Amino acid sequence: MDASTTNEQNRPHVVIVGAGFGGIWAAKELADQPVRVTLLDKNNYHTFQPLLYQVAAAEIEPEQIGYPVRGILRRMPNVTFALAEVTAVNLPSQTVTTTHAELAYDYLILATGSITQFFSTPGAADHTFSLKTMEEGVKLRNHILTCFERAVQAAPAERPRLLTFVVVGGGPTGVEYAGALSELVHGPLRKDFPELNMGDVSIVLLEAAGRILGGMSESLSDYAGQSLQRMKVEVRLEKRVTAVTDSHVTLHDGSQIPTHTVVWVAGVGGEALAKESGVEVLANGRVPVLPTLQLPQHERVFAIGDLAAFPVADGAAGSPYLPMVAQVAIQQGIHAAQNMGRHQLGLPLTPFHYWDKGSMATIGRNKAVVDWHGRAFTGFLAWLIWGVVHIMYLIGFRNRIMVMLSWAWRYFTFEQTVRLIMPSNHVAWSSMIAEDEYEKSAD
Amino acid sequence: MDASTTNEQNRPHVVIVGAGFGGIWAAKELADQPVRVTLLDKNNYHTFQPLLYQVAAAEIEPEQIGYPVRGILRRMPNVTFALAEVTAVNLPSQTVTTTHAELAYDYLILATGSITQFFSTPGAADHTFSLKTMEEGVKLRNHILTCFERAVQAAPAERPRLLTFVVVGGGPTGVEYAGALSELVHGPLRKDFPELNMGDVSIVLLEAAGRILGGMSESLSDYAGQSLQRMKVEVRLEKRVTAVTDSHVTLHDGSQIPTHTVVWVAGVGGEALAKESGVEVLANGRVPVLPTLQLPQHERVFAIGDLAAFPVADGAAGSPYLPMVAQVAIQQGIHAAQNMGRHQLGLPLTPFHYWDKGSMATIGRNKAVVDWHGRAFTGFLAWLIWGVVHIMYLIGFRNRIMVMLSWAWRYFTFEQTVRLIMPSNHVAWSSMIAEDEYEKSAD
Repeated sequence: MDASTTNEQNRPHVVIVGAGFGGIWAAKELADQPVRVTLLDKNNYHTFQPLLYQVAAAEIEPEQIGYPVRGILRRMPNVTFALAEVTAVNLPSQTVTTTHAELAYDYLILATGSITQFFSTPGAADHTFSLKTMEEGVKLRNHILTCFERAVQAAPAERPRLLTFVVVGGGPTGVEYAGALSELVHGPLRKDFPELNMGDVSIVLLEAAGRILGGMSESLSDYAGQSLQRMKVEVRLEKRVTAVTDSHVTLHDGSQIPTHTVVWVAGVGGEALAKESGVEVLANGRVPVLPTLQLPQHERVFAIGDLAAFPVADGAAGSPYLPMVAQVAIQQGIHAAQNMGRHQLGLPLTPFHYWDKGSMATIGRNKAVVDWHGRAFTGFLAWLIWGVVHIMYLIGFRNRIMVMLSWAWRYFTFEQTVRLIMPSNHVAWSSMIAEDEYEKSAD
Repeated sequence: MDASTTNEQNRPHVVIVGAGFGGIWAAKELADQPVRVTLLDKNNYHTFQPLLYQVAAAEIEPEQIGYPVRGILRRMPNVTFALAEVTAVNLPSQTVTTTHAELAYDYLILATGSITQFFSTPGAADHTFSLKTMEEGVKLRNHILTCFERAVQAAPAERPRLLTFVVVGGGPTGVEYAGALSELVHGPLRKDFPELNMGDVSIVLLEAAGRILGGMSESLSDYAGQSLQRMKVEVRLEKRVTAVTDSHVTLHDGSQIPTHTVVWVAGVGGEALAKESGVEVLANGRVPVLPTLQLPQHERVFAIGDLAAFPVADGAAGSPYLPMVAQVAIQQGIHAAQNMGRHQLGLPLTPFHYWDKGSMATIGRNKAVVDWHGRAFTGFLAWLIWGVVHIMYLIGFRNRIMVMLSWAWRYFTFEQTVRLIMPSNHVAWSSMIAEDEYEKSAD
C-alpha cells in the first residue's frame, strides 16, 4: 500500500443512503472533496421520478428514466457504490447496517426519499396502486392494459367496473396521470379495442380539498380542472376516500364507485428507515432538520430531499415545510455536501436557502401549467417549458434522446407504443380481481 | 343484426394459437379471406425473439422488441385478439379451451412455438437460465448485473465463481450471447466496477459436438470460434454437461466449473400444449405435419413454425426436419393460411416449399457470419447484412428506429446503457445463490 493509498484510506468516510436526486447531487458535490464516499441504494439505478407517471401511461419505456448509478459515478474516483438495502442507522455507534454488511461512517447523509401515505384509510394499502417506484409504474401500466383485455372477455355488465379508473389526489402527480391516462384510453386503446364501448370507460379524479393543484395559484387550478373535464376526466372536489376494496371505493358521503383500479397519489411521507432507526421524526415520518440540514444533536448527520422536513414561512398549499420535489432535493444535496466540507475544516455551517424555480404540471398534449413566483403560464408555452425542464434534469444523454424521440413519436402519431403487459402479470388478472366475480364469456 | 353482420357470423371461424412469427403472418394472410379469425396468446405482445439475447446483454430495452398484438391487427377487421393461455386443444370436438373460455373452431392453426429442452440433465431445469421469453431475457440481464454487484461485496475467494458465466450450446443463440456478454463485461462493466479484477471473469461456451455453429459451413465455425477466443470467450468443444447445481456445472469427463450462472441454449423442442392435448408428437414434442402443413388425419388443423416437424432431405446440422427459425415460421404461416383458403373452396392443397434465405449469427462489433446456400460471408459485410435483415423483420416503425438508435449509440460510445436491475431482483441475489455461501464483506 503506497503513501497515496494510505492517505486516501485516512480520509473521512461519508455514507450516503439513497441514489435519488438528493443522494446523487450530494455525491457529485463530494467528488472533489478530500473524503471517501459510499453511496448505498437498493436499486442499481437512479429513477427519474417526475416521468414515472408516463411509464404508467405506456408512453415511455421504464429503461428511459432509469440510469445505472455506476455510470453516473464513473468520473468520481472517490465515490463507490454498493447495491444494498439499509436496514438500520445506528446514530450512537456511527454505523449503518445493510442487508449485507455494517459500515462505519464519519459523516452520514440520509436521502431515502418518501413513501406513499394512506392515512389509515381501510383497504387503501392493499387495494391501490402507487406511483413512487419503477416497479409500481410498470405494475400500474400492466394493470390498466389487463383491465381492457379482461373487459373484452367479461360479461357486458362487468365492463364498466373494469373500465373505471379512479385517481385519488389532485396534486401534480394525480393531475398528470389522469391526463395521460385519458390520452392513452381515448387514443390508442379506443382503436385497439373496437369490441369495447368507450361509454363504459370512466376516469375519475378525486380531491379532498376544494380545488386541484392546491400548491399553485387558483387560476391554474381552474385551467387544469377545465382541461381535464374536456379530456373526459371527471374531476370531483371535496371528496374524501374512506375505504377501498378490490371492487369499489367508498367516499365520505357514503357513495361508492365500482372499480378495480384505484391509483393512490393522495399523500407522501418520509421513508421508513429514519423512523425505524429511532431518529426523531414528524407524524408523517419526515425528519426535522436544522437550517444547516443537520439533524438536531447529530452534527455529522444530514437529512435532505423528501425525507427532510425543512421549515419555511410560506410553504406550498399552506404547508410549513418545503415541498417534496426534485429541486429541493438537488439543492439540499449540494448544500449538505458543502456544509460537510465546512464542518471538516472547522468553519461555521451555512443555512440552506431554497431557490424556488417554480412548480409545474403537464395535463396533456399542448396543455400544462407553470407557476413561477406567482406568475401563471398555461397552454402550449407552459407545455414547452415543462418538456425542456424535464429533459434537462434527466440523467444520461441517451435517455434524453430516447425520451424526446418517444415524445415526438407520440406527438405526431397520437400513439402510446409501450402498450405491453410485461413482465406478464397473470398475477394482476387473477389476484387483483377475485376470481369468482369473473364471468366466463361464451364464444 | 343486419344482413352483413349475419353473413360475417356465418363465416368459418379460424383459431390461431400463438402470436409469434407463424401466428402473426398467418393472421395477416387471412385478413383478406372470408373467415373470422381469433388469435390467442398469453402475452399481449409479439416478441422478436432473434434479438432477445441483446436484451439479456443489456443492449436494448425489452420494450423495443415487443409489439402490441392489437396494434398489428388494427387494419384487419376480421381478426380479433384474446389474451388467454390455451390449456387444451380438443381435436374430436373441434374446440380450444383457454383459462377463460372454450372456443369452437372450423379451422385451427397451432403456432405455439418451442420451449427449452434439458435432455433430463440433472439440475438443468432448476439452475439454468433460458432465452426463449422476454421475462427470461430480463431475468438473465438482471442476474448478470447482480453477480457483479454481489462480487464487489463478496470475499475475494468467492469472486471467480460469481464472475464465471457458462453458456451451454454452441448454436447461433449461444454464439451470439457469448459474444454479446463479452462485449458487455469487458466494455462498460469493466469501467463500472473498478473494484473488481477482470482476471476473475470467465465466459465459457460449451458445445457437445466437435464445432460450434454446426448448421453452417466449417469455415464459419472456425471464424466464429477464433473471433470468440479473441474476445476472451473460452470455447470448449466436445463437452457435454451432465449436471448443474446452484454453484457449479459438471461435465461428462468429471471436471467441474464453479459458477452461479449457466445459460442453457443447448436444445429446443415443441411447446407442450400439443403433446398435453394428445396430439401425436415426436420425442422432442414437435408435431409431425403433412407436406401441406396439416396434421395427419385432421385436415382442418395445421401446425407451423417451431412446433411443426417438417421433413426435409437435407436439414441443417444433419437434422431430418426444417430448422426452428423465424423464416420457416413466417413462410409456413402464410402457406397454411393459403391452404386453408384452398380447403374452403374444395381445391387441392399444395405442399409447402421452404425458400431458404440463409442462416446467420452475429458475434460482436463488425463481426458476424452469414451462410447463404453454401456461400460464406464473415466480418463487417456479414455484420451489416445481419443488421439490415433483423431491422427489416422487426415489427413497428418506432421499434426499428429505437433499435437502430440503440445500436448506433452502442457502436459509437462502446456503452451498453440498459445496465439496470429491473424489476429489482432481490430474488436473484438471495435465491439463486444459497445464503450461507455468501461471505459478508468487512467495511
